[in-house]
Amino acid sequence: MINLQNDYCGIAHPKVLEKLLANQNETYIGYGKDEKTAEAIKLIKNKFNAKSSYITFLAGGTITNKIAIAHFLKPYEAVICATTGHINVHETGAIEETGHKILTINSYDGKIKKDEIVKIYNMHTDEHMVKPKMVYISNPTEYGTLYTLLELKGIYEVCQKLGLYLYLDGARLGVSLTADTNDISPSDYVLYTDAFYIGGVKNGLLMGEALVINNKALQKDIRYAIKQNGALSAKGFVNGLQFCALFEDDLFFEIARYINVMASLLVEGLKKLKVSFFIPPQTNQIFINLPHNVVESLKTKIKFTIWEENPTFSIVRLVTHYLLNEDLINEALLMIEEALKNNENR
Amino acid sequence: MINLQNDYCGIAHPKVLEKLLANQNETYIGYGKDEKTAEAIKLIKNKFNAKSSYITFLAGGTITNKIAIAHFLKPYEAVICATTGHINVHETGAIEETGHKILTINSYDGKIKKDEIVKIYNMHTDEHMVKPKMVYISNPTEYGTLYTLLELKGIYEVCQKLGLYLYLDGARLGVSLTADTNDISPSDYVLYTDAFYIGGVKNGLLMGEALVINNKALQKDIRYAIKQNGALSAKGFVNGLQFCALFEDDLFFEIARYINVMASLLVEGLKKLKVSFFIPPQTNQIFINLPHNVVESLKTKIKFTIWEENPTFSIVRLVTHYLLNEDLINEALLMIEEALKNNENR
Amino acid sequence: MINLQNDYCGIAHPKVLEKLLANQNETYIGYGKDEKTAEAIKLIKNKFNAKSSYITFLAGGTITNKIAIAHFLKPYEAVICATTGHINVHETGAIEETGHKILTINSYDGKIKKDEIVKIYNMHTDEHMVKPKMVYISNPTEYGTLYTLLELKGIYEVCQKLGLYLYLDGARLGVSLTADTNDISPSDYVLYTDAFYIGGVKNGLLMGEALVINNKALQKDIRYAIKQNGALSAKGFVNGLQFCALFEDDLFFEIARYINVMASLLVEGLKKLKVSFFIPPQTNQIFINLPHNVVESLKTKIKFTIWEENPTFSIVRLVTHYLLNEDLINEALLMIEEALKNNENR
Amino acid sequence: MINLQNDYCGIAHPKVLEKLLANQNETYIGYGKDEKTAEAIKLIKNKFNAKSSYITFLAGGTITNKIAIAHFLKPYEAVICATTGHINVHETGAIEETGHKILTINSYDGKIKKDEIVKIYNMHTDEHMVKPKMVYISNPTEYGTLYTLLELKGIYEVCQKLGLYLYLDGARLGVSLTADTNDISPSDYVLYTDAFYIGGVKNGLLMGEALVINNKALQKDIRYAIKQNGALSAKGFVNGLQFCALFEDDLFFEIARYINVMASLLVEGLKKLKVSFFIPPQTNQIFINLPHNVVESLKTKIKFTIWEENPTFSIVRLVTHYLLNEDLINEALLMIEEALKNNENR
Repeated sequence: MINLQNDYCGIAHPKVLEKLLANQNETYIGYGKDEKTAEAIKLIKNKFNAKSSYITFLAGGTITNKIAIAHFLKPYEAVICATTGHINVHETGAIEETGHKILTINSYDGKIKKDEIVKIYNMHTDEHMVKPKMVYISNPTEYGTLYTLLELKGIYEVCQKLGLYLYLDGARLGVSLTADTNDISPSDYVLYTDAFYIGGVKNGLLMGEALVINNKALQKDIRYAIKQNGALSAKGFVNGLQFCALFEDDLFFEIARYINVMASLLVEGLKKLKVSFFIPPQTNQIFINLPHNVVESLKTKIKFTIWEENPTFSIVRLVTHYLLNEDLINEALLMIEEALKNNENR
Repeated sequence: MINLQNDYCGIAHPKVLEKLLANQNETYIGYGKDEKTAEAIKLIKNKFNAKSSYITFLAGGTITNKIAIAHFLKPYEAVICATTGHINVHETGAIEETGHKILTINSYDGKIKKDEIVKIYNMHTDEHMVKPKMVYISNPTEYGTLYTLLELKGIYEVCQKLGLYLYLDGARLGVSLTADTNDISPSDYVLYTDAFYIGGVKNGLLMGEALVINNKALQKDIRYAIKQNGALSAKGFVNGLQFCALFEDDLFFEIARYINVMASLLVEGLKKLKVSFFIPPQTNQIFINLPHNVVESLKTKIKFTIWEENPTFSIVRLVTHYLLNEDLINEALLMIEEALKNNENR
Repeated sequence: MINLQNDYCGIAHPKVLEKLLANQNETYIGYGKDEKTAEAIKLIKNKFNAKSSYITFLAGGTITNKIAIAHFLKPYEAVICATTGHINVHETGAIEETGHKILTINSYDGKIKKDEIVKIYNMHTDEHMVKPKMVYISNPTEYGTLYTLLELKGIYEVCQKLGLYLYLDGARLGVSLTADTNDISPSDYVLYTDAFYIGGVKNGLLMGEALVINNKALQKDIRYAIKQNGALSAKGFVNGLQFCALFEDDLFFEIARYINVMASLLVEGLKKLKVSFFIPPQTNQIFINLPHNVVESLKTKIKFTIWEENPTFSIVRLVTHYLLNEDLINEALLMIEEALKNNENR
Repeated sequence: MINLQNDYCGIAHPKVLEKLLANQNETYIGYGKDEKTAEAIKLIKNKFNAKSSYITFLAGGTITNKIAIAHFLKPYEAVICATTGHINVHETGAIEETGHKILTINSYDGKIKKDEIVKIYNMHTDEHMVKPKMVYISNPTEYGTLYTLLELKGIYEVCQKLGLYLYLDGARLGVSLTADTNDISPSDYVLYTDAFYIGGVKNGLLMGEALVINNKALQKDIRYAIKQNGALSAKGFVNGLQFCALFEDDLFFEIARYINVMASLLVEGLKKLKVSFFIPPQTNQIFINLPHNVVESLKTKIKFTIWEENPTFSIVRLVTHYLLNEDLINEALLMIEEALKNNENR
């Protein structure tokens, strides 16, 4: 079976494992106070031009979102996000568990527009309603789409004006930064958000995301919040070492670029097969519309996710990752071609 | 510097890393639905004779305690634990963050007695006070001491009688099970607790603890609680593989036994040096009383923790781990001997 | 100024105050354990045929909703409600503060349909999403509209089938029960909900709502939840006495009927003035569309709420209450007539 | 039966009820935005010399403590209080429900000393433990004892030095301010606390406490916190009117003084009977030691609370209130005398 189900299906990139192996006889200070964590932080600060940001490593995306939101907001303050936002749909109420309401903006492609932020902000006029205080966006979005630099800056300016924090979920920041259509540079995330995170889990690590807090006022006591949320790793150095592996050379970008190349091959192949796209793909999440029969026959050959089922067709999500190669992509395309043909001949 | 600071100072036991390396080209289903996780669960069920327990893997101890307590209790229900209990002192209010009060029993050596449970239970008579509903104990305790089987059974019987759950924190369960003075077998933990966890972080893993829920009534929907608390690993299989490594042979017990052997060597050496013990050591946490000057001069040679400072001496905690060996222990003993002599000669 | 702003603008109905005055030299047991509270509960059980329900008095609507939802649900369980639902819009995230997500169904008139419940339930398939467990409806709704008995039964049957609790917010249950178009009897609320509350604040009391829990499984330990939420009144007997006043005769229904009569007079008058209704009025909340100029000129004569402002007109809410009378209603209608005329003549 | 059980056993002081009656035909703006609430706030500001304090009315003590603590602290910040503190013992974990840990100082008489605050503060050194941020004291304490001005100032100075907020629970502030041994004036509470509350429930009101926030930094958005906690009264003016009644003349102090006079009569009588006091009484809570037989025989004649039962005697709490008079006190004393005699003659 060819695995196109997600980008967290492999253990870790060989260079990440090598890094751990090379240091297996060392001992380190616990809880992220070690020198490898310090080194990793320094490397990221350089790559992102984030001199005065606070950086810390956490195990996964949900816990990162949860801690950031709970730490930045007062109990009655709310987060604005797209209806499709990960925190709104796929985190089992992790944000509400911290006491915060999520205010949603309808979205088709995962993106939100600055005018909609203003609108929802203006609707919340007094203490009978929650107080909007943060905007949550993902780049790439949950549908693989990308914000432009102009859009990001526009949203940040609106946030600044309204006294809202802008928080950006970068679970797949790597493929975003290395996408063909991207015009946002690493340092822009430091300039135009209050905080964001750099995803490691979906970019070759065993586990680990790097939370980057740019807004000085939000940095204080974050380690207390992390510990209270059960997320301060005793072996923080394991995160430190992994992020050293990612950023001491350009491995973070290499992996991401490779994943995008795999995605491009897949997209081009699908275009040749005249497969219709649910949303024009920009990164490594590819949403296509397939007849139910085709989905059914592919199930035993390719691992993928059925995103939504409509009366006439299914929206299928295909995801590329670092363990794929050109041969596997071609093989998958052949299987899809065959399934489509069989369906036409029925 | 010889590291006697803690048992989570090394990356992972070689056999654990090997397991990951050997499978680095595989892809797996996410979120712990993979076959390696299933295999690890089966292995643990066999070793602990826990056929009808529910087993799941979590990253660390605090998040495991947090989820178990939040999932098992109603908001106004409270946990009884020793004043020295990890959840009471060293988890930054992680339990309170979930809304639950901790009721404490004074303890000198980390242990609590069944009569004290009855006493505190009886003090809580109506809805103006929280409702005690769980007893939390650790084995070994935070002071390295051990419960006997008789004590464990006694506490469990009291809990059963009073309608309390017994939850056991097994962050260092390995060294407990393999200690010379231990008379509790793995299956006893299944028989005499409602839930407990088997610590991996302090026993050779990169990260990971195995939560074992014996009480059927507490098993339902635990995955919702895990996800909501941000603790459902996308790469669950990394936990699965590590626990396979621990339990497919007897690695879990081998590591623990080795750590205890290192502890015995250290304790015997300390006895010869006439060092006084704060508490008679039973496992790999060794608490000794040292004059301030001795502590000061050892600081540059050995990594350790100052647990408490008294006017005349310090209580120092020394911890053994899988990366030590007889030579290193002897070297440390020599350093201590020298520091003690220098102090006497002052 | 004629007050048509809300139905909680007066201190308390004369008969309620009389009841308190008549007993001002008595002393009572605290926290609702007194005989007057017991008597009030018995009276309500009789009127609603609620023999095996558990009844308790709370100060206001938000705290009642908050406690009920927090007590009935596990942390990851969610409430389904209309986008217009009071808990979703006007309680400052009180429900989310208890950790629960609200899942919304788009609503124009405050009502939801049983099919929409099924739809949203089916969308929540696994532990990556919250688990729908309760449906929240209001009767009358936040727009003054009413459910029919058929609709209520239909929703309850769907809930039963899907394992959801049905909770009904009866902040204005009185005007609902005594409305011309109502076909639901008091006992139906006991038969076709798991819990509901009978509003006192908006029906003549100083403060106080009666929470009625029909589902046996949800009754246990509710007093612990009330106390923990800071809502167990030391002077519970003040609630008890007030509810005795409401239910020992038919005062509850008399007040509600009177409020509805006032509403009818107002509605008939508005119809004669050809005022357009935003929603056909059924109870004492009357939503009308008025040109901005009319709203502006009425502001100094009548107290009311501007519910929503559109480019061409405002949606204005008028509410009747027990302190109005026919003369005041006529006076208000004259003012509206005049304002409308002046606007036409501009 | 003579009621000496508590000071919240009567409906409300006649002058308070009169105030409500006199205004029963008025209508008011909701949620505390009315002119009576504004007037009451002004009156309190004058009496307490609290020009720049923020004042708001809440229904009872637990909800006031809960909101103040939750609003003032970040999630990982903790409250220091006496083991006997109301928030620690008798609020069913209401504080923990908001996520905050309570750190306790052993207390025999309800009071804490400034040195103990320093000690507990110094024990909390890093992010593995909660961060102490508030000190909670009650005056009078839960044992009826009083702080001196020197003690209050000393505690406040320590708090200022350590960056802790000082919050004072004034559930019975009236009897404190009018006690013979008191040397703290109303304005001292404004000068030497960050926030405190003036109890109404136990001083003649139907319900209601006045939260006074002196520290500017803690005032912001408190109405959001109140609403989110379900404690923003729709009929806020009922609180406003009651506090007008208390403070437009000196009714607040008159009631309190009267209660203290009743207490003095009772104490003097008890002294004549050679009853032993558990704690020397200073206000209206009188703790005495009585043989079990005496307690048993008094149960049918006087309502009181058994605070604690020891092998040889019971600690009984007697409380005076505004509905007592000299005759009733004498009658109670006679009953006690008789019970004591009967016991001696056995």
